[in-house]
Amino acid sequence: MPSSAPRTVTACMLIIGNEILSGRTQDENLRYVATGLNEVGIRLMEARVIPDVPETIIRTVNECRAAFDYVFTSGGIGPTHDDITSECVAQAFGVALHKDPQAVAILEAYIPGGLNEARLRMATVPKGAELIQNQVSAAPGFRMENVYVMAGVPAVMKAMFDNVKRTLKGGAKMFSRSVRVELAEGVIAECLSKLQDANPDVEIGSYPAMRRGSFGVSVVMRGVDEKRLDAVVVDLKKGLEALGGKPQDETAMLAGQGA
Amino acid sequence: MPSSAPRTVTACMLIIGNEILSGRTQDENLRYVATGLNEVGIRLMEARVIPDVPETIIRTVNECRAAFDYVFTSGGIGPTHDDITSECVAQAFGVALHKDPQAVAILEAYIPGGLNEARLRMATVPKGAELIQNQVSAAPGFRMENVYVMAGVPAVMKAMFDNVKRTLKGGAKMFSRSVRVELAEGVIAECLSKLQDANPDVEIGSYPAMRRGSFGVSVVMRGVDEKRLDAVVVDLKKGLEALGGKPQDETAMLAGQGA
Repeated sequence: MPSSAPRTVTACMLIIGNEILSGRTQDENLRYVATGLNEVGIRLMEARVIPDVPETIIRTVNECRAAFDYVFTSGGIGPTHDDITSECVAQAFGVALHKDPQAVAILEAYIPGGLNEARLRMATVPKGAELIQNQVSAAPGFRMENVYVMAGVPAVMKAMFDNVKRTLKGGAKMFSRSVRVELAEGVIAECLSKLQDANPDVEIGSYPAMRRGSFGVSVVMRGVDEKRLDAVVVDLKKGLEALGGKPQDETAMLAGQGA
Repeated sequence: MPSSAPRTVTACMLIIGNEILSGRTQDENLRYVATGLNEVGIRLMEARVIPDVPETIIRTVNECRAAFDYVFTSGGIGPTHDDITSECVAQAFGVALHKDPQAVAILEAYIPGGLNEARLRMATVPKGAELIQNQVSAAPGFRMENVYVMAGVPAVMKAMFDNVKRTLKGGAKMFSRSVRVELAEGVIAECLSKLQDANPDVEIGSYPAMRRGSFGVSVVMRGVDEKRLDAVVVDLKKGLEALGGKPQDETAMLAGQGA
């Protein structure tokens, strides 16, 4: 019988800002978005970190909005001269920028001292954009079709993304299981390879890492069917025990981390 | 007189691995590479996080090695079935894979217990590749032309990159200065904009952030001429003082962070 499984809904994230590429700033938005998208059944397929260069931003936005169901951007929507994301997104869509009356009202309420030219930049969005609320620092993000334009400051990005997340239409939700074993990857590789071949519907990843001084491997299984995952976990544990390992379930430990 | 300034040498980083895109793992390699490249006069122009999907890896490697002087990859060169970077890079270059005798010897010396099929995968590189030494866990990375293929585990990636770094040919080295002021971005935006217009050879970035409970802005100036940066810092401080701010030098604080 043909399966009626929901299709895979895809996303791409664009992290815009010289400060990430110079090494000055450690990005922490990608992981937050990735984890949130898991929760609503959307798969982050790619992320790009790009500089504050108009041609690069415009080209990348257009490439990615055609290639993925959703595009999320972070960075470049503040009041200073280096905040150029809004004008680049307008250009990518071939529309003009305008001062959004609702955004102006939001900023006026938040900054009673008055809006100068610079702050009004934060109310300037592409024509046709729908605002994304920002309960942290007021200045809104916006959506143009499938492109969601958010701030770079993590506290603000997270607030915006939480608002956006509720409106996204996901597909097949990915579940995961994680099993840890204190054996070398080279020892368990054959077992994993056979398990992967026997279970093509489950994505099996092998991640070596130190933990409490001992070097072991976390084996992560991802897929849309939790029962299938549980069955693969049983087989995996048997295989690891046959190799002398003492596999431990660590799924709960990683819950909420998109494990 | 025509300037004899060295040309800009560019790089792109490819972070390969489902675990970054699922949110399971926080990347920490990008920042290390970015900072190291600053030191040798190479500008990281873009980074992409891509999944363990052969077509995506092959296409992206070919796109990026044509577009940038250097490409650095992290992830996917271990012994397990999901480590597919080496075979994808071979395909991107249109060459066969082979067991590198030097890599086999290195692994034999490190794993006296013996090399199984899986571990021999870590000695399997594209024909024509030059090995990158790994003093942490032996299994080498490799270079194919301008593409440097490194491990994903941060301790290993960092050791490999340190070895690679000494061999890179940089161009104009970027220097930076950073000044912090406890004023809102909306207040200093006009001052920064004028300063940027007057100094197109210096890249001026504005980064709001909390520090010790107060919300302020770090203004970062980057450029190839340190004297020019120092002159811009003087003008910036004057401008910020005129706005009632007390600008503080924070360049030293950010040294080694590619600020």
